[in-house]
Amino acid sequence: MSDEHNYIAGKNPLFETLEQRPGEIEKIFLRDGLRGRDVGRIQELASSHRIPVSRVPAARLRELTDERQDQGVVALVSPIHYLDLHDWLDEADVSANTSLLLLDEIEDPHNFGAILRSAAAAGITAVVVPKHRQAPVTSTVFKTSAGTAGRIPIIRAGNLNQAILELKEQGFWIAGLQAGSATPLWEMDVTVPLAFVIGSEGSGIRKKTLEHCDFHYAIPMHHGVESLNASVSAALVSYEWRRKQDTTT
Amino acid sequence: MSDEHNYIAGKNPLFETLEQRPGEIEKIFLRDGLRGRDVGRIQELASSHRIPVSRVPAARLRELTDERQDQGVVALVSPIHYLDLHDWLDEADVSANTSLLLLDEIEDPHNFGAILRSAAAAGITAVVVPKHRQAPVTSTVFKTSAGTAGRIPIIRAGNLNQAILELKEQGFWIAGLQAGSATPLWEMDVTVPLAFVIGSEGSGIRKKTLEHCDFHYAIPMHHGVESLNASVSAALVSYEWRRKQDTTT
Repeated sequence: MSDEHNYIAGKNPLFETLEQRPGEIEKIFLRDGLRGRDVGRIQELASSHRIPVSRVPAARLRELTDERQDQGVVALVSPIHYLDLHDWLDEADVSANTSLLLLDEIEDPHNFGAILRSAAAAGITAVVVPKHRQAPVTSTVFKTSAGTAGRIPIIRAGNLNQAILELKEQGFWIAGLQAGSATPLWEMDVTVPLAFVIGSEGSGIRKKTLEHCDFHYAIPMHHGVESLNASVSAALVSYEWRRKQDTTT
Repeated sequence: MSDEHNYIAGKNPLFETLEQRPGEIEKIFLRDGLRGRDVGRIQELASSHRIPVSRVPAARLRELTDERQDQGVVALVSPIHYLDLHDWLDEADVSANTSLLLLDEIEDPHNFGAILRSAAAAGITAVVVPKHRQAPVTSTVFKTSAGTAGRIPIIRAGNLNQAILELKEQGFWIAGLQAGSATPLWEMDVTVPLAFVIGSEGSGIRKKTLEHCDFHYAIPMHHGVESLNASVSAALVSYEWRRKQDTTT
């Protein structure tokens, strides 16, 4: 997997991608002066998915892609291929050596990239992200991950709480960090398949999601520090799991 | 400790700070049109310490500080007070519960801030930084540290290798991360006072510094990932030390 981008050209390919995998579109380029109902619809969809749209001269569009039939419409698509949760579960060999990170609305692309890098390095099996309110895997994410974003499977789920219920049915136990929990992180139980919820920078794990957790762990805090960056918490969780995998016989 | 800045006004206070603690100066403001030998000397010193200099109207200078005798010269000084290594060692109660992070030219202020935050949270005793080629504690560092930069003592040493020799004389053992070492991080020996060297983002721990290390630990890597961000490595080291402190009886 390199950090090369893909471009798609033409209205139909763009509408298809906008409808099925909008999070993979990083940017849309429209030819200067292009108007019409389709253009209005593209701008509407782009806006609702927070995808930037640029107007460029026809010559610039032709530089982006070899496709001659671009119809004045080109989109830059993420190098990452997302997996579907159900497809992944159908093929996964779930055991006590399986671990997932569930990202609960990590909106900062730098944090997202850093989490992917640490999770991959620790040998976490895969990362699960919600379809909405999650930073898409843009080139910023790819760069922050030091190119490792493509090395760990990224699974998308429509709704994180729904995904948690499905994972529980497949034998996963759910763990979350909760400040004030009496159980330090290093008492993590790794005798079962684990899915760790990583909360967002601002608000942590949402209350409803926290209620789904079977285990609540705390990272001990000193010097009056109240919290850690989400990417640091994720790295500590990932490597504590790795340590236990490597040292528990 | 808040994130409020201090200002110093006047030529003599500025020269004194430029000579003794230049790393604490974030920015120098000079009155529009101010000329002379002192101004040339200030600009020379500022340039050699990579301190930005701005020209501002006299009215703006007076807004910065209440000092009426500013002589056209005001400087913004970091909210952090650095400790001197020898002073700190004279007063320190060095035991197996003492731990230091030695930062080997961490030049990125975001990484520096993140390291201070994790080290403080893990209860590391203090952080040692070299006087040169190390990001000064600017407001970016302070912000990235989530305000925790002032919660952990920051010690400055003229030269990191010299500091390592002095720390060894005081009973510290030196540990460094080295990719490929056969000893995983979790075999860390915490029965002695420890000082961990944290290498820079680009080049890691310098060869000569690595030779001073009594222990070389590796963070296991999976999915083909080759390295971790310096702030993530520092967090893993800090919390592995914390875990052992809390679980070793």
